[in-house]
Amino acid sequence: MKEKNVAIIDMGSNSVRLVIYYINDRGAVYKLDDLKNSIRLSSHFDVDGSINEIGRKLTIQSLKQFKQLCDSREVTSIRGVATAALRQAKNQKEILQEIHKETGITFEILSGQEEARYGYLAVRSSMDIDEAIIVDIGGGSTEISYMKSRKLINSISLPYGAVNMTEKYFKGFDVVSRQDVAPLLLEVFSQLERIPWLKNLKCPVIGLGGTARSLASIHQAKRRYSFNSIHNYKMDAYDIELIFHYLRRTPLQARKNIEGLSSGREDIIVAGVSIYKAIMEYVDIEEFYVSTQGIRDGICHEIVMKEADVSLDEDIVSMHMKRFAHYYKINVDHAEHVMQISVMLFRQLAEKGAIKYSEKEARLLAIAAYLHDIGRSINVYHTHNHTFYLLSNVNLPGLTHKERLLVALVASFKKPHILRERIQQFNDIVNEDDEFMIRQLGFILLIARALDRTASKQVEEIQVLQEETGLVIVCHVNRKRIIETDLAAELVKKSKKFFGMEISLRPIKKLKKLLR
Amino acid sequence: MKEKNVAIIDMGSNSVRLVIYYINDRGAVYKLDDLKNSIRLSSHFDVDGSINEIGRKLTIQSLKQFKQLCDSREVTSIRGVATAALRQAKNQKEILQEIHKETGITFEILSGQEEARYGYLAVRSSMDIDEAIIVDIGGGSTEISYMKSRKLINSISLPYGAVNMTEKYFKGFDVVSRQDVAPLLLEVFSQLERIPWLKNLKCPVIGLGGTARSLASIHQAKRRYSFNSIHNYKMDAYDIELIFHYLRRTPLQARKNIEGLSSGREDIIVAGVSIYKAIMEYVDIEEFYVSTQGIRDGICHEIVMKEADVSLDEDIVSMHMKRFAHYYKINVDHAEHVMQISVMLFRQLAEKGAIKYSEKEARLLAIAAYLHDIGRSINVYHTHNHTFYLLSNVNLPGLTHKERLLVALVASFKKPHILRERIQQFNDIVNEDDEFMIRQLGFILLIARALDRTASKQVEEIQVLQEETGLVIVCHVNRKRIIETDLAAELVKKSKKFFGMEISLRPIKKLKKLLR
Repeated sequence: MKEKNVAIIDMGSNSVRLVIYYINDRGAVYKLDDLKNSIRLSSHFDVDGSINEIGRKLTIQSLKQFKQLCDSREVTSIRGVATAALRQAKNQKEILQEIHKETGITFEILSGQEEARYGYLAVRSSMDIDEAIIVDIGGGSTEISYMKSRKLINSISLPYGAVNMTEKYFKGFDVVSRQDVAPLLLEVFSQLERIPWLKNLKCPVIGLGGTARSLASIHQAKRRYSFNSIHNYKMDAYDIELIFHYLRRTPLQARKNIEGLSSGREDIIVAGVSIYKAIMEYVDIEEFYVSTQGIRDGICHEIVMKEADVSLDEDIVSMHMKRFAHYYKINVDHAEHVMQISVMLFRQLAEKGAIKYSEKEARLLAIAAYLHDIGRSINVYHTHNHTFYLLSNVNLPGLTHKERLLVALVASFKKPHILRERIQQFNDIVNEDDEFMIRQLGFILLIARALDRTASKQVEEIQVLQEETGLVIVCHVNRKRIIETDLAAELVKKSKKFFGMEISLRPIKKLKKLLR
Repeated sequence: MKEKNVAIIDMGSNSVRLVIYYINDRGAVYKLDDLKNSIRLSSHFDVDGSINEIGRKLTIQSLKQFKQLCDSREVTSIRGVATAALRQAKNQKEILQEIHKETGITFEILSGQEEARYGYLAVRSSMDIDEAIIVDIGGGSTEISYMKSRKLINSISLPYGAVNMTEKYFKGFDVVSRQDVAPLLLEVFSQLERIPWLKNLKCPVIGLGGTARSLASIHQAKRRYSFNSIHNYKMDAYDIELIFHYLRRTPLQARKNIEGLSSGREDIIVAGVSIYKAIMEYVDIEEFYVSTQGIRDGICHEIVMKEADVSLDEDIVSMHMKRFAHYYKINVDHAEHVMQISVMLFRQLAEKGAIKYSEKEARLLAIAAYLHDIGRSINVYHTHNHTFYLLSNVNLPGLTHKERLLVALVASFKKPHILRERIQQFNDIVNEDDEFMIRQLGFILLIARALDRTASKQVEEIQVLQEETGLVIVCHVNRKRIIETDLAAELVKKSKKFFGMEISLRPIKKLKKLLR
């Protein structure tokens, strides 16, 4: 297997940022390290439009430091990209030559279109949405793209960012009045008016970049949101409006104490959120999602697609599920087998009336079944706790927060009272009806797991039959007394508690089946 | 590196149990799987003292199933040991031959002395106690050993276990009265009287085996103990007394609902706890610790000691710390370097009066520093949360629960308010004074981590100097502007919050140092 560590450095108007990824030719990818330096390159321009001496020095210093981290992490290739600040700089050529001379890193200046495309790639590879307006607000520019049927239809880059708009409109302001904001909004509106394809769209807006992440964090902190995740967090236009006014009214020093606002962003956040506010007002759409995946992830996705020896799933949930499995080193054969048995059991139990079937729940059960064992990577004892911890704390892109939580609860289901304790912490996301459903799916998964306890596919086929005494789960096996059916039979005795009816389990030898 | 999966099967009077370990020649060892079947072999004896047909069948069935799991987990060697039930069985030879014929597994019958020695090895390799009485109550025997200066001094095996004592004294009892227990206690007392070396010992008692584990679990559930760990849990003789009366008064069926009592043990738990009660009364000692490590772990430890290419530390905390590091794949060079800088900084800050020094705290800081990065194995984002989760949920043998929690809190320290939230869940273990100490140690660790941010040992020496303006942390570096000292200097600005005084940081080039 070919594998390597690659670095992507993204030199923007607000910060220069390094991310180091591990990738391999099976399509696996995960972040190894992440380092940022808020240089504010766009504040270091001479009047003639060149990046000045201080800006140059700070940049080269940071890049040398990044290089050091790359060396220590055994990075084999560094991809440098520069965005708005360098696009605008008169002396871009000299700067890039000096950087190359001093650090050996080659930077490529992305056009606004290219930047937008990487943002789109980041969204396409991490969110399960067909149609959206993608808005990436950086320090010196804003990219707006329109995706339909998961294809990039249109995009544009506007020269407005959180840093340059702060410089232009709010420089040195302690608080920002409604009147102060008006000219900024007008300027953005007048630009948006000129984008013909942006009119009359009816789809969610997806926000990328530091401003969007801070919006989500602040909103989550305010409402004491229970789930530990920003990616795919849903807000609405009104939430942005409220946070906007809260931020602009809070004096600069006091903003440092706002929970969720990342440090070093307190001066430029008002301008950043103003731009979102302007766009949301203009497009007149309610739904707003935040993506933590941005252009660096888009670039990495492109690299992986090129280098992977396998075709990557267009179904992004499957793709990320497999990456998860790879990262936490689960036994994939076992995972797939348990997934098949679980869904088979769910379907057949539903056909016989023990449970209500829905495609949505079958999908959740399948994902939970596939990932039930990831907690083993932490420890073989209390695995269910570890599985729950991982699934509820590490991002699984493609799923909504509620879906992730349901998957975590089903995958880690062990006993009803443990489930209840877990659910209590998340009562802003799941309710009692969900609990009932999770218990049933969780119980089915426990049976399926028992049926592959030795991870050797002893039970490949099951049939749920209606007999006089009630439902019977018939398992076709090679030897009659295997541990799989012993354990499952023991579990099935508790069926009444979960399905309201007695169910039994009967192993039969495969031979018998042929003779019938 | 030589590595393999080994299985240990332990055939006892109550259950037959399989554990599969991964081991390698660097001394790493961890459990991959664990399976048990409560056959109750000692209930399947003929009047002539032979294991009967049912006992035989159940045993062979279980072992075939275990073999299947071993195959699927690619186990290369299986070590089978049998204890009391087989020691007592008239037909032991035939049984073992039949087992070998049917499953290919060779079993060795351990003498009581050997069984005691493996229990002692389990304790010695997982607890940081010099002197103790080790009591391992199984289904058909009880091993008592005396360890002094970590050496095994004496041991004895008594033919009393939770299963055979239930058969003899409480068979079919729903509740057990004080009168019912008296004869059992008398019988045990009279045996204990005959052990000369057991008199007048003054050291803690350590309990091994399922009865001891259940004692701890029940006690923890009763007091709503906050920490998720049984190993090294401390109780006292009075706790055992209370739980004993609670158990014997609870009717058999109702015992099934006792939180902490493992299922399938409700009938034999009263007899098991009676034996502990008798021993605690006899030795007249208050302190009682529970070890989850038992003879299987002792056997595994012996195998690892034989096969390891490295000498294993006699300092068991170091040994387990290194195993942890191996299992969670941390960068050991970086871990050691951060550990050294942390302790150096702690010592020097203490010398200059910024903090109070204690050896105990220096040790906690060292362990926390060494393990601070293990959360990275889960995810590179929110690593501090993952480090906290791992250190507070996975056993690190050798440390007390309080020490483990302190290490977890120091290693994962990020901000005071996050620390406070974490501490609130554990207010039965840590208090406000601890919080103050953790903040200081945690802050020192943050500085030390910054000083090796690129994991390349840029800062190898530091000196804390008293200058006119206050304390200065002088770092000797090769290049003046490295990210390490930039990040650390930024952190050090917050010193007043943690040490009540301003401290600054100054990088100086190594050359200068030589010229002074």
